[in-house]
Amino acid sequence: MAPAPLAVSLGDPAGVGPELICEAWARRHEERLPPFFVCGGARLLRAAAAARGLQVAVERVPGIAHVAEAFSTAIPVLGEIDGSYRPGNPEPEGAGLAFWSLGRAASLAVAGEAGGVVTGPISKALLAEVGLTFPGQTEFVADACQVAADDAVMMLAGPSLKTVPLTVHVALADVSGRLSIDLIVRRGRIVAQALRRDFGIDYPRLAVCGLNPHAGENGRMGREEIEIIAPAIAALQREGIDATGPHPADSMFAQRARETYDVALAMYHDQALVPLKALDFDHGVNVTLGLPIVRTSPDHGTAFGIAGTGMAHPGAMVAAIRMAGDIAARRATA
Amino acid sequence: MAPAPLAVSLGDPAGVGPELICEAWARRHEERLPPFFVCGGARLLRAAAAARGLQVAVERVPGIAHVAEAFSTAIPVLGEIDGSYRPGNPEPEGAGLAFWSLGRAASLAVAGEAGGVVTGPISKALLAEVGLTFPGQTEFVADACQVAADDAVMMLAGPSLKTVPLTVHVALADVSGRLSIDLIVRRGRIVAQALRRDFGIDYPRLAVCGLNPHAGENGRMGREEIEIIAPAIAALQREGIDATGPHPADSMFAQRARETYDVALAMYHDQALVPLKALDFDHGVNVTLGLPIVRTSPDHGTAFGIAGTGMAHPGAMVAAIRMAGDIAARRATA
Repeated sequence: MAPAPLAVSLGDPAGVGPELICEAWARRHEERLPPFFVCGGARLLRAAAAARGLQVAVERVPGIAHVAEAFSTAIPVLGEIDGSYRPGNPEPEGAGLAFWSLGRAASLAVAGEAGGVVTGPISKALLAEVGLTFPGQTEFVADACQVAADDAVMMLAGPSLKTVPLTVHVALADVSGRLSIDLIVRRGRIVAQALRRDFGIDYPRLAVCGLNPHAGENGRMGREEIEIIAPAIAALQREGIDATGPHPADSMFAQRARETYDVALAMYHDQALVPLKALDFDHGVNVTLGLPIVRTSPDHGTAFGIAGTGMAHPGAMVAAIRMAGDIAARRATA
Repeated sequence: MAPAPLAVSLGDPAGVGPELICEAWARRHEERLPPFFVCGGARLLRAAAAARGLQVAVERVPGIAHVAEAFSTAIPVLGEIDGSYRPGNPEPEGAGLAFWSLGRAASLAVAGEAGGVVTGPISKALLAEVGLTFPGQTEFVADACQVAADDAVMMLAGPSLKTVPLTVHVALADVSGRLSIDLIVRRGRIVAQALRRDFGIDYPRLAVCGLNPHAGENGRMGREEIEIIAPAIAALQREGIDATGPHPADSMFAQRARETYDVALAMYHDQALVPLKALDFDHGVNVTLGLPIVRTSPDHGTAFGIAGTGMAHPGAMVAAIRMAGDIAARRATA
């Protein structure tokens, strides 16, 4: 059976989310996108499409059962809630709409009515002002699934590279203190399982980055490799997981090195995101591993500065929708 | 007047240096390489060429005046000192030869007899055993020029990116403590001057990386951007240097971002080297800025594991020789 349609949340209505949803729908045939619907914002989507010069119809549907049929001729929208389109001018009202849209999309996925959720980009600071009590959308979705935030693992996936940052919004000087054998093992386990279940990689190869230059050169420049990373890799290997490293980070993102693994486990935000964005800036997908539901997101922000100008690249939104559909389809047939 | 020929040092004879010098010479026409000579190792180069299946002649020349003529038909070698070719088996004798070759090449450049020096890859640990008292070749060459090691600035240059790591062989947790306004300003000044003099960029654009994720988000994740990096940028700007930042590192190496600057100043080793090697692994050149002489090096190590197998890619050696020639030619006509 085909999986249920995907729920897409609007993202901040003053950002690039709405126009990119419209652009993705307009390319649904050439990009072979699965059916999706948007939670709220019908009027807003029409305005965003018009601003981008797109000939796109938007249709309110009374329920998810109507999505598949509507999708062939219009962007299906579920829910009456709406807002006005003022690209580049974020305000609390819009953030409230974004929050509602996120919550609705997540709960439909949790209920099994949607095949998964694709979240549009939000401003964390603005959403916090209107009541989001989590650091970001990933933690919100994890909580909706009753999964501990620590076990919802962010993976960034582009055409050239998949990478998982083991710490994220941490000052660089504090990264070392956040690393532990348990953290790496726990996340490594979730990553290996998700690559099998969600990406169809039967024997996933995990390449684990060192923290220090040259992976510390046997302790000459930092001891985290010896005391934390190598023991964690050994523990993963004892569980039958194909984990290697710690690899010197500078050479492991070179093309030939990338061919030797399926995912890189990075120790900090920029170690994962610098190579991903250098290689795949316009097509990066943020996918949350370890959840009972499927959740992806384009790996870019609200880009308030270019919202409404037509300059925003739809590659990441398209890739996020396609990846969510692929994972949902794989789970549906498992 | 054409600049004097370049002096190339062998690098560790058990590494990939000798074979790549031969390979570069074999491609001198198609790669439009300037005349160069090698300091020592005539017999060794012949053996390395043979192992790689290259039809390459090697000719001992009595002095630099003979290099230009010899170069059209053979690799000119200056100096009797030699060794045996045992690729993949580093030993102190070979390290001694590498050290002699480096010293000779550097001193000929300092004396103005060579147009510049291109250093083959060495093993720092092995060279330390035979008497190198500097952390690496860069510091050795700086000292030969009587330049303070702090003012010899390493830049990594590939076809897609030029980047300068402001700290290098430092544990990641210690990077923050090594940064200072003075360090960034001093290096930024040298970089700007070198891009003008050596790369012909009249108004070089320096993009300065933040240290923390998202460049710290106004102090939310680390205060180095506020207390160190931003004031350093302001100081550079007051000197008329086009410096911008601190930029979030994750997005500044994306293709469109790279088009907006000539060089990225990175705060630590992997921040510079991850994107460089992800984008330009086989063509990276290590060029030392701020010296009275021209000095480049291929941005790879001895690669003992593949020496003598023919697998080593000559792109970086070729690029290092060409870049040294280009800089020498630009200085000669300045």
